Amino acid sequence: MHDASDPRLADFADLRDVELRKSLEAEHGLFIAEGEKVIRRAVAAGYPVRAVLLTRRWVDSLADVLEGLGDRVHVVDDAVMEKITGFPVHRGALASMERRALPPVAEILAGSRRPGGEPVAAPRRVLVLEDLVDHGNVGAIFRCAAALGVEAVVLSPRCADPLYRRAVKVSMGAVFAIPYARMDDWYGGLAELRAAGFRTLALTPDQSAVPLDEAEMGERVALLLGSEGDGLSSRWLREADLPVCVPMSPAALERGVDSLNVVAAAAIACHGLMRRDRPAR
Amino acid sequence: MHDASDPRLADFADLRDVELRKSLEAEHGLFIAEGEKVIRRAVAAGYPVRAVLLTRRWVDSLADVLEGLGDRVHVVDDAVMEKITGFPVHRGALASMERRALPPVAEILAGSRRPGGEPVAAPRRVLVLEDLVDHGNVGAIFRCAAALGVEAVVLSPRCADPLYRRAVKVSMGAVFAIPYARMDDWYGGLAELRAAGFRTLALTPDQSAVPLDEAEMGERVALLLGSEGDGLSSRWLREADLPVCVPMSPAALERGVDSLNVVAAAAIACHGLMRRDRPAR
Ligand SMILES: C[S@@+](CC[C@H](N)C(=O)[O-])C[C@H]1O[C@@H](n2cnc3c(N)ncnc32)[C@H](O)[C@@H]1O
Ligand SMILES: C[S@@+](CC[C@H](N)C(=O)[O-])C[C@H]1O[C@@H](n2cnc3c(N)ncnc32)[C@H](O)[C@@H]1O
Repeated sequence: MHDASDPRLADFADLRDVELRKSLEAEHGLFIAEGEKVIRRAVAAGYPVRAVLLTRRWVDSLADVLEGLGDRVHVVDDAVMEKITGFPVHRGALASMERRALPPVAEILAGSRRPGGEPVAAPRRVLVLEDLVDHGNVGAIFRCAAALGVEAVVLSPRCADPLYRRAVKVSMGAVFAIPYARMDDWYGGLAELRAAGFRTLALTPDQSAVPLDEAEMGERVALLLGSEGDGLSSRWLREADLPVCVPMSPAALERGVDSLNVVAAAAIACHGLMRRDRPAR
Repeated sequence: MHDASDPRLADFADLRDVELRKSLEAEHGLFIAEGEKVIRRAVAAGYPVRAVLLTRRWVDSLADVLEGLGDRVHVVDDAVMEKITGFPVHRGALASMERRALPPVAEILAGSRRPGGEPVAAPRRVLVLEDLVDHGNVGAIFRCAAALGVEAVVLSPRCADPLYRRAVKVSMGAVFAIPYARMDDWYGGLAELRAAGFRTLALTPDQSAVPLDEAEMGERVALLLGSEGDGLSSRWLREADLPVCVPMSPAALERGVDSLNVVAAAAIACHGLMRRDRPAR
């Protein structure tokens, strides 16, 4: 048994303190996977385990994952778990995992690599996330993307981290399943997509834009999604090939609702792409 | 200035303690609106203000709302605000509002009432939420519903409360804009919908169900959505007129993704209804 101040437990400290976690995880190159299912998916995707913190009742079901980890397995009771992490961990098991260097955007678009290591075809459908702030939204968008046939995700330089605990959790591990990369350069970021033959569609709540269902598609399509507060930057809106919208009910505006949440917009747009792909195939 | 233990501030205590808040809010018949925009929408929808807790810099912009509230306006600094509520309130203003008795389901389906008080037509498109647990999901679904032409929401007896602070916040006030009611009876709940002429479509990730886009609609349609963990109960799946699915990518299953998040499913389904309504009108 451990006490909460044991330095070997530092990976798991104060999981609800976003600022602290961001710097701690960047400094040590780690991320946290929560719950048996998500831990297994991270392992399957090839991320090395640094340490595991869990309660006794998870020891058996995770036995194969724990094997060989020796003193990097920390079995504690619920109270100590809560003391270390700062909240009651319902899923009873946490693993700290080693991050990997992200591939360059060009590599993702060429389709040569995926997090798990096996080769993949060049993606035809990608999402591009500009400066999303909320980790839950980033995770939910990865889950949608995985479910709805999107093959890669590109992040703006300042977009929230898909490997942050909450993003991983909400994605249910889809952040391990979809290749993604981060742009170096926000200003010129879309040029690289266009050079790779992607038609860039900027999703905007502006109802004077072309409805997504009527927009001309291309062999390769990139859907751009903007931040929760301000939406897409004017730079990206201008640079994109076409601004497109999901039509909203005329009554919505009167009700003070002038946009969809970004996850809802992403879901509808990904579904729309899938629907239009199917008959053509 | 107040100190954090002032009993007049009890409405605002420990806003992150879900269990405590649930019982406190039920007992006193109140809910919390957060931020200027949402407070204004609650007031516009006719909910009476009990008290307001805010920092000095919001006093001017909320002047009209504060008028006449007298000593039920509590101006504090950020530190006291955090001490009372238990977290840093970025939006700087909180109002506790009086709940109203919810109308019976029959009344909502007949369309005679809406939260703001003015009469509305009988709804043709409704969502029915069975036992959703996450307040954020409930709020996000209301926002989608408002944006995408859904006219009413029906909750199962145990579904999470749309007026819980996080639901209100995520909905951006849409919970005030859409009439909703809660069933008394889970087991027989769908009978009332069917008796009112609704075609009940049960949304399920089961890919052998009819794709939503191909499902036969009706003049009145109710979309049933299930909980984050278990999905719809077998009772409701069996009772519904038709199980329908949003098709997912065949690759998703291999990636360990076997369903959409319920907000994403709701968004796609509402959009689908709207799209099919439009050409017909
Ligand atoms: C909450 S919205 C941002 C709202 C912001 N005020 C604006 O005007 O863009 C976040 C993102 O969701 C997407 N979005 C929201 N509603 C949409 C709609 N009706 N059609 C297309 N995209 C939408 C856009 O990508 C947007 O940048
Ligand atoms: C996370 S899912 C529940 C998953 C649960 N294991 C099941 O099998 O239903 C939550 C709800 O979202 C809706 N949903 C999720 N994926 C869907 C899909 N592909 N098609 C239709 N509805 C879906 C359903 O209403 C479901 O009850």
